[in-house]
Amino acid sequence: MIRINEHYTKLQASYLFTDIARRVAAYQQANPQARVIRLGIGDVTEPLPPVCIDALHAAAKEMAARETFKGYGPEQGYAFLRDAIAANDYAAHGCRVDADEIFVSDGAKCDCGNIQEIFAADTRLAIPDPVYPVYVDSNIMAGRWNNITYLDSTPQNGYVPSPAGIAAAPGAPAPELIWLCFPNNPTGAVATREQLAAWVAYARANRAIILYDAAYEAFVRTPGIPRSIYEIEGARDVAIEFRSFSKTAGFTGTRCAFTVIPKNLAARDASGNEHTLHALWNRRHTTKFNGVSYPIQRAAAAIYTPDGKQQTRALADFYLGNAALIRAAMTNLGYTCTGGVDSPYIWVNVRRDSWEFFDLLLNRAQVVCTPGAGFGKCGEGHIRISAFNSRENVETALARIAAALG
Amino acid sequence: MIRINEHYTKLQASYLFTDIARRVAAYQQANPQARVIRLGIGDVTEPLPPVCIDALHAAAKEMAARETFKGYGPEQGYAFLRDAIAANDYAAHGCRVDADEIFVSDGAKCDCGNIQEIFAADTRLAIPDPVYPVYVDSNIMAGRWNNITYLDSTPQNGYVPSPAGIAAAPGAPAPELIWLCFPNNPTGAVATREQLAAWVAYARANRAIILYDAAYEAFVRTPGIPRSIYEIEGARDVAIEFRSFSKTAGFTGTRCAFTVIPKNLAARDASGNEHTLHALWNRRHTTKFNGVSYPIQRAAAAIYTPDGKQQTRALADFYLGNAALIRAAMTNLGYTCTGGVDSPYIWVNVRRDSWEFFDLLLNRAQVVCTPGAGFGKCGEGHIRISAFNSRENVETALARIAAALG
Repeated sequence: MIRINEHYTKLQASYLFTDIARRVAAYQQANPQARVIRLGIGDVTEPLPPVCIDALHAAAKEMAARETFKGYGPEQGYAFLRDAIAANDYAAHGCRVDADEIFVSDGAKCDCGNIQEIFAADTRLAIPDPVYPVYVDSNIMAGRWNNITYLDSTPQNGYVPSPAGIAAAPGAPAPELIWLCFPNNPTGAVATREQLAAWVAYARANRAIILYDAAYEAFVRTPGIPRSIYEIEGARDVAIEFRSFSKTAGFTGTRCAFTVIPKNLAARDASGNEHTLHALWNRRHTTKFNGVSYPIQRAAAAIYTPDGKQQTRALADFYLGNAALIRAAMTNLGYTCTGGVDSPYIWVNVRRDSWEFFDLLLNRAQVVCTPGAGFGKCGEGHIRISAFNSRENVETALARIAAALG
Repeated sequence: MIRINEHYTKLQASYLFTDIARRVAAYQQANPQARVIRLGIGDVTEPLPPVCIDALHAAAKEMAARETFKGYGPEQGYAFLRDAIAANDYAAHGCRVDADEIFVSDGAKCDCGNIQEIFAADTRLAIPDPVYPVYVDSNIMAGRWNNITYLDSTPQNGYVPSPAGIAAAPGAPAPELIWLCFPNNPTGAVATREQLAAWVAYARANRAIILYDAAYEAFVRTPGIPRSIYEIEGARDVAIEFRSFSKTAGFTGTRCAFTVIPKNLAARDASGNEHTLHALWNRRHTTKFNGVSYPIQRAAAAIYTPDGKQQTRALADFYLGNAALIRAAMTNLGYTCTGGVDSPYIWVNVRRDSWEFFDLLLNRAQVVCTPGAGFGKCGEGHIRISAFNSRENVETALARIAAALG
């Protein structure tokens, strides 16, 4: 009988958000009158920016006429989008990223999950804990469950692990592939220029690669906090960056993202020959992906127009307003919070079992959060509250939480 | 220094359509006045059906208002689309496929490329030759370059290999994962009910799995030719089916497809425990994919309305009209052709080096075809001509070919 990929048996039984959905569904079935407010999964709630709607309509019209119809596009994305990204997300911030170093995709989740495939099966990984589960699960699926050094993100290090922790591990060979995510999901922590520079220096010294997930960069407002790893000198030699329109422009259901692979990034084969990661990823991308829907790429490109920039900034500001309210309310209740500034997530140190606190909020306040334990062992004792909801729902949720816990 | 996935070094240097694009670009640079007609890559040219355009506009309007906005959808696809597929593509044709056995994705290329991941690294494969390169390349990337038994598709077997060929291989253990594609890309051949039944019987006897690529089923017009593997009794125990809206509804640039995994399909782990492939793929799909864009799913669902069915059938009929012209013209020139009936591809036995014939058509007729050698060793001596173009372009191309070769 045909056999399965054995590595899948090493995965934990189910996926965090599936577990949450199951508990919420059970609660709603038992309490059909309850109006549950979801501040759990990081899903946006506000409509697409008007520039994106206009672009969708315009592209639909193009698809209706033979002269303007678009079939297969470049798998890496249309030039109009890659050029806009290079100019606005990078050149305008003093970073050099060429348009052909940008791979447009249908989601940062896909890219984060697939990128590990271009590296050797026995690659040694450093992955934050707590963490977005995709980094870990996709590597377990590839057989690397024994190769992971966890970068503990704790109250002691302000939820920003440093490479010094790795160096101190006795006798362990240095990790070669380092996952970082700032502004962080789930902790909402941001890294300073100095903290990122330390990781770039580590990667350069150890000829390692940093996989930098910047899906939440649009929420950074504090001057001096980097929005891209490429703001750090030397990062072009060691870092891949993931970005997404999901949170920047409300694209969670619209689907567009991109990954940057500088052309000089290299890794070696068993014979010692160097290969560029750009070429490897290009091969993977063109073999197993067929480009993002044309109307969706048009909608994404629209956010780089003057109106689009204003509208997406207003969108992020709106969620940041929610985040500030949540952080203030939880702080008032006596909890220590991270994030909620430069980030749509508030990481609350609840000092007790996180699933227990999840159940407490669900049962007493009809509010869904995400239990920290679902993000890794260092997530235990914490919950993540998401600022992605209407102002009214956030205010109602916070009033209920204050009444239940105050 | 970090190391690459060594298997990538076993890939052939570049991708077929990239090579073609390079030769065409070189020709156009040398002959800027030439009006090249592309009958190479199987990319549609006619606009999206009006029902799809209407659905795109309606969905864009939904995304513009908070009350109807859609964030993350189910990774497996919305119920409105999965239900429509189950009812119209399967129940209406007497096949049992449940809606929750359908995984909506952004492309059959992605699903065909990713499916191998849920099977053991040392799985023995049977892959047709000639073949859509993605089946081979995605398995080479996973390290299975030594595990492939090629199913030769030749003039002798009418380009439909039978399992008898495998059984005859001396001493070789039986393949466990069998790729089939009908109507075939690139040969345009279709399999009869009896031919598919032989494969289902083989898979049942050997506890193997059939991966059935039915991306071109919309072009089947001959009564009795199966459009789905599930029309064959017992196939639900051994077959996964891939389908796409790319050719059915002109979605090559719009991106939507689906994969069917019956819930009873199983494979074993090293300890002999059985696992359902449905659960494994669901885990992969929810970990590394985040669902298809909501407006695009709405556009796909529109093709199952009465108007949508009529419009998509007319679209396929239009391309089949082109195919009939191409087949007749090449037959008139003395070439033996397969396909062009029940298929948008015409596979022409040119009895000479296929890249040489490609260059001949490009240089003498300014027509781009696909050289058969790019699809595998049995493709040598053949070219593929695609019916995806306007009637005018097809007629012009055929007149030029007749003048050049007649």
